[in-house]
Amino acid sequence: MISVEDAIARITAAFAPLSSETVPIGECAGRTLAENAIARVTQPPFAVSAMDGYALKCADAQKGATLRVIGSSPAGHPFAGKISTGEAVRIFTGAVVPDGADTVLMQENTSADGDSVTINEAAEPNRHIRAAGLDFKTGQTLAKTGRRLTARDVALLAAGDLPTLTVRRKPVIAIAATGDELTLPGVARAPGSIVASSGYALTQMITQCGGGVLNLGIVPDNVEAIAAIAKRAKDADLIVTLGGASVGEHDLIQRALGPQGFTLDFWKIAMRPGKPLIFGRLGNTPLLGLPGNPVSTFVCALLFVKPAIAAMLGRSDTHQEHSAKLARALPANGTRQDYIRAQIISRDGEAFADPFDIQDSSMQSLLAAADALIVRKPHAPAADAGARVQILPLGN
Amino acid sequence: MISVEDAIARITAAFAPLSSETVPIGECAGRTLAENAIARVTQPPFAVSAMDGYALKCADAQKGATLRVIGSSPAGHPFAGKISTGEAVRIFTGAVVPDGADTVLMQENTSADGDSVTINEAAEPNRHIRAAGLDFKTGQTLAKTGRRLTARDVALLAAGDLPTLTVRRKPVIAIAATGDELTLPGVARAPGSIVASSGYALTQMITQCGGGVLNLGIVPDNVEAIAAIAKRAKDADLIVTLGGASVGEHDLIQRALGPQGFTLDFWKIAMRPGKPLIFGRLGNTPLLGLPGNPVSTFVCALLFVKPAIAAMLGRSDTHQEHSAKLARALPANGTRQDYIRAQIISRDGEAFADPFDIQDSSMQSLLAAADALIVRKPHAPAADAGARVQILPLGN
Repeated sequence: MISVEDAIARITAAFAPLSSETVPIGECAGRTLAENAIARVTQPPFAVSAMDGYALKCADAQKGATLRVIGSSPAGHPFAGKISTGEAVRIFTGAVVPDGADTVLMQENTSADGDSVTINEAAEPNRHIRAAGLDFKTGQTLAKTGRRLTARDVALLAAGDLPTLTVRRKPVIAIAATGDELTLPGVARAPGSIVASSGYALTQMITQCGGGVLNLGIVPDNVEAIAAIAKRAKDADLIVTLGGASVGEHDLIQRALGPQGFTLDFWKIAMRPGKPLIFGRLGNTPLLGLPGNPVSTFVCALLFVKPAIAAMLGRSDTHQEHSAKLARALPANGTRQDYIRAQIISRDGEAFADPFDIQDSSMQSLLAAADALIVRKPHAPAADAGARVQILPLGN
Repeated sequence: MISVEDAIARITAAFAPLSSETVPIGECAGRTLAENAIARVTQPPFAVSAMDGYALKCADAQKGATLRVIGSSPAGHPFAGKISTGEAVRIFTGAVVPDGADTVLMQENTSADGDSVTINEAAEPNRHIRAAGLDFKTGQTLAKTGRRLTARDVALLAAGDLPTLTVRRKPVIAIAATGDELTLPGVARAPGSIVASSGYALTQMITQCGGGVLNLGIVPDNVEAIAAIAKRAKDADLIVTLGGASVGEHDLIQRALGPQGFTLDFWKIAMRPGKPLIFGRLGNTPLLGLPGNPVSTFVCALLFVKPAIAAMLGRSDTHQEHSAKLARALPANGTRQDYIRAQIISRDGEAFADPFDIQDSSMQSLLAAADALIVRKPHAPAADAGARVQILPLGN
């Protein structure tokens, strides 16, 4: 048996970052930068007002003074002239601060009367002015290569005047569910058949990780159908089979794909659920064979497919540790790393992980009800209620 | 000024769940159920083996006994006969347990020799057998109306033999960025102009919440262009304007949209960033006018647009509290509810919220760098480092 960490390291080592492509900024959320994104403008590009009010010279703005309003500066329409002593310009939020002004007085602190304005509260220098470049400056790196772009990143990079970005091509993951017992939902079934369901969760997981799915559907347990995967998946960056990782099944996969150029590695991983795993190459394309029990499939996809996609995207932002306190005690762990389905409950605002009593790897109802997996290292000692444990949030 | 809670309550009260539609199961991740999803099968539909091994009668399986192997039961191909005393059937993971068998012995604990198998370790009754219905039974509610479906939910419902689901129609949100100063990224700009960027973040946020976006682009500050929003957004379920919530601007919106049937409510909300907000109806369509500073726009969208979408989807699963400890002290809060941009750092596996020194509502660089908002109630007293505070995670 090999450790989960070793398995992840061996799998991710098989992938290099994919080629890049140029994508319009509006389609870049969720994509991963293939080069640094560098601001093409300074933001704000000029000193702007943070308030609606009057731009003026601070020295003029004593309480009770009256100034002549010589014009206005709405956002997008800068005042063309210059403010001299005794003058003010009506100004609005986001508008350019006119030449000659060194402060903005909020309109709440003034009284307007035709072309003049009276100061009701003395101004302070540089108040309510956002200096040019407060947010960022031309040439500044706004986001680094390897970052997966959030909604906020995309807005920032748009503000940096970047109409397109250079991002990694989306990895294509071919998925094949293997097994004579599998059918589609809603279809009449022969005795002994069940619905193939894991592919739906895996498809969504891959999409959320920034990959695309090539769905090969259900592949029956025969040499011809399995051998055909090689041709059908020839444009994929990774082939994932669901089921087919148990001893008898991996023999069949070996027999069917061997003549297609498959070199197989069969691992027993010290983990629960999901001990057996196939990893190999079909020609140049890595192939990952996940165990068929739905919870095992899901946990193995989380642990092995996600990092493979991250490696193909050249992501630099994947490391994130989460923890919670145990809602109740757990016994000492055995030899395998355990991934315990749990709900997260809140006690006085603090997160507690509450493990389910039943941890059967076939039970999708409990997987769906779980909020997180509690990670228990091999040989971890018994843990009391309240002990802090590592968790993997399952999210949506 | 009204409170954030009041504003949310008034806004969500303006929405009712939308109509429902039938969608193929493979397209249901992220959609919200409009009726309970009820299993059409029992899972597993029959007692199945949890291991590769032999199905047999427990009473026969004493250490050293040899049984006759009368057939095999691979997954999808049930053994048609019945096991009698002294007999065993080769069985594989997920396959039907044949009639007459009451346990499964792992193959590791047997020695096969032609048509016979020798028992190396005594069996226990019902071992390695998953009973029919262990996961769920026909007629059982697998997910309730109002639930937004995760990847795992979709897999569960597929396993429940549901080829389609009844979900809420996707709400359509029209977005208009108002302001003469706004331009698109990559376009030559006049002095005083800046790139309109908030719409990118809002579009992604709406998509992630399960809505669709009708992008009305940039709308200049004139009556005709603003009035045209009424016609352009006639199919939307909600209109969101970005900018146009300050005093002068809301006058313009009132003037332009009033003749189109707009009834306006203008609120000052006790929050920072983002005090001014427009809420009203354009004909029958709710309109939300968010402040234009990018951080204010984003925070207000998080607080007000997300719940509006959840209300249209009839979601029942939105309440979730998150907390963290403060990485450093915060002073007492003023009269407005504060949303402080912060990074989440890990200390000994525990999450700490580390607020940025600068909290200017125009700074998208810090918004993009933030992991969460620290929520500070109006008049909250000073908080020490290590104090537990409520946070809103920003995610991606």
